[in-house]
Amino acid sequence: MTQPPPAEIGDDIADIDTPALIVDLDAFEANVAKMAENVKEFGLRLRAHSKTHKCSEIARRQVAAGAIGVCCQKVGEAEDMVAGGVQDVYVSNEVWGAKKLARLAELAKTATISICVDDAQNVGDLGTAARAAGVTLNVYVEIDVGAGRCGVNPGEDGAELAAVVVAEEGLNFAGLQAYQGSAQHIRTINERGAAIGNACDNVKLTLDALAARGIQADTVTGAGTGSFRFEANSGLYHELQCGSYIFMDADYAQNQGMDGGAFDEFRHSLYVLATVMSATKPGGGIVDAGHKALGNDQGMPWVADIPGATYERPSDDHGKINTTEAAREAVLGEKIRLIPGHCDPTVNLYDWYVVVQEGRVVDLWEIGARGATR
Amino acid sequence: MTQPPPAEIGDDIADIDTPALIVDLDAFEANVAKMAENVKEFGLRLRAHSKTHKCSEIARRQVAAGAIGVCCQKVGEAEDMVAGGVQDVYVSNEVWGAKKLARLAELAKTATISICVDDAQNVGDLGTAARAAGVTLNVYVEIDVGAGRCGVNPGEDGAELAAVVVAEEGLNFAGLQAYQGSAQHIRTINERGAAIGNACDNVKLTLDALAARGIQADTVTGAGTGSFRFEANSGLYHELQCGSYIFMDADYAQNQGMDGGAFDEFRHSLYVLATVMSATKPGGGIVDAGHKALGNDQGMPWVADIPGATYERPSDDHGKINTTEAAREAVLGEKIRLIPGHCDPTVNLYDWYVVVQEGRVVDLWEIGARGATR
Repeated sequence: MTQPPPAEIGDDIADIDTPALIVDLDAFEANVAKMAENVKEFGLRLRAHSKTHKCSEIARRQVAAGAIGVCCQKVGEAEDMVAGGVQDVYVSNEVWGAKKLARLAELAKTATISICVDDAQNVGDLGTAARAAGVTLNVYVEIDVGAGRCGVNPGEDGAELAAVVVAEEGLNFAGLQAYQGSAQHIRTINERGAAIGNACDNVKLTLDALAARGIQADTVTGAGTGSFRFEANSGLYHELQCGSYIFMDADYAQNQGMDGGAFDEFRHSLYVLATVMSATKPGGGIVDAGHKALGNDQGMPWVADIPGATYERPSDDHGKINTTEAAREAVLGEKIRLIPGHCDPTVNLYDWYVVVQEGRVVDLWEIGARGATR
Repeated sequence: MTQPPPAEIGDDIADIDTPALIVDLDAFEANVAKMAENVKEFGLRLRAHSKTHKCSEIARRQVAAGAIGVCCQKVGEAEDMVAGGVQDVYVSNEVWGAKKLARLAELAKTATISICVDDAQNVGDLGTAARAAGVTLNVYVEIDVGAGRCGVNPGEDGAELAAVVVAEEGLNFAGLQAYQGSAQHIRTINERGAAIGNACDNVKLTLDALAARGIQADTVTGAGTGSFRFEANSGLYHELQCGSYIFMDADYAQNQGMDGGAFDEFRHSLYVLATVMSATKPGGGIVDAGHKALGNDQGMPWVADIPGATYERPSDDHGKINTTEAAREAVLGEKIRLIPGHCDPTVNLYDWYVVVQEGRVVDLWEIGARGATR
């Protein structure tokens, strides 16, 4: 069921079988270093989001560059990260079900494990699981800071749930989860800033309500690649949860940067390599990468290797490269790089990163949490 | 990297961990039997499309019900099918690259292997691979019958390429690949019929051009779940390539049937089981299944277990169940079944089918070709 790697170390890029997921090592390392530098300048902590990469090799590199650990969305991802040597893992998501909570508590025997909640019954379930395993779980209360997804209302509701956590044996109230996910892809910097400004107001409201109860929130955690400078500058956040910065997909690249110009402080480092396997009509070709090789939910991939070409009409195993406005035609049999529209669901389709540098395959990294949706 | 099964045989449905891919065995078996019966009535052959299920257990059941074998889109899928005991496998797609063609030829040592082409150079590459392995490959010439994707022009171009195949040592010209993929989801029966009528005209044109050259096309192969009765009734097709009929996703269910009414000759048999893991606001809940658990490229899943509810706003690991127009609220912690919008890319996200009957898990089927995109 696990697919074999599409290349061997030492291969030329042209020898990689397709479709394959490629990491440009130089761009990747520059991105890891850039974010580490940013967070250091802010005087904050980076808890890199591993839902983007699902790969403990990448997590270890982020930690080596200064991240305090990772966050993830699923217990299965946390298990892979702990197995891969990451010592501090936060499931920044609500988890229901006795089996999953038992697995989570088991992990806390060998690593520092945190989780977030937005419901009192769930707090009780977590306490039961922690006590059964003889461990302590760090628990963040998630407040809805504008995304309209998970999380209790900011202010009094958040403080009330925190009090429930404080009272539950086996749990340690760690602070607030305050991630504004729907703000990450707002294109203009002013509107994005306004959305995070609103999120910060809601954090402040909740911190005040906590203070009124005498409850200390050691950590406020949140922020993504699209917004992190706003949270960092708010003076309210302690940890940043950026994930996509390591790869920079086509969606994020359409955001305005902080200065109103291009969002170019991170480089594209993730590609899907595809082969042109049919070209019977002028103005384009068909590649061997469709919905099963690309996450297209936030828009189509960009065609990196044919300037002016577009990718369109994906089906399960095909996509059309339209070259009617492009610098050149697509050549039958050639391999071209696509920049995924959305990195996270694209990565989840593959078992291996093929790591390239100076035209050669220099490493193969297992995507150990591929498919770890539970 | 392969995920463990989300349940054990004998479990109650309520004990299945989520997200999980569920097959309703009774509905599945009824679908397999219904299509076998249809094809028998037509006096044609069924070559079931395994790109839908990626599972040799399912392929074997289709063959046991009368299918002559399977088709698939990728060499990796073909390898899984042959390893799983399927003796007649057709890669109904163009394949480029010496490594892939060598793998394909290797398979022909133990099974009957066919492939399709739309380019003369590719025919030469296939011949080279076949001769190197000491095997014969059956080759179909793909003609573009209206989908505008792969395939040569019908008529003279198709016949010319067939002549190239006939002349190539190691290859056996098997006939025409004539699949109108873009017609499958045309909603009204009249428009769909017109599209297949046009495809049939193009098949006829090509058969005439072949006859003029004295080339016999033993088999014309094509058709899908949305259109198969039209191809069957044309008198031109010998093999039908239907795949989705075994599962019936939400997209196909929106097609008109042959009589202009509901397309209900097949039943929904595939579900994603998801847990409501947050419900902090009235009018809905958040489930633990997003883009990494559902193929949403042809529309959102349907909520099977809450009449009137809709699934919306998917993100990587979440989806919102909107119950504002529904019969009831979503209950925190409950597990609900979703009918995928598009079965093929949904299946490709999972390692296991959890097979259920009368409320219990009765089997676990490996999705051996999950991720086999090469």
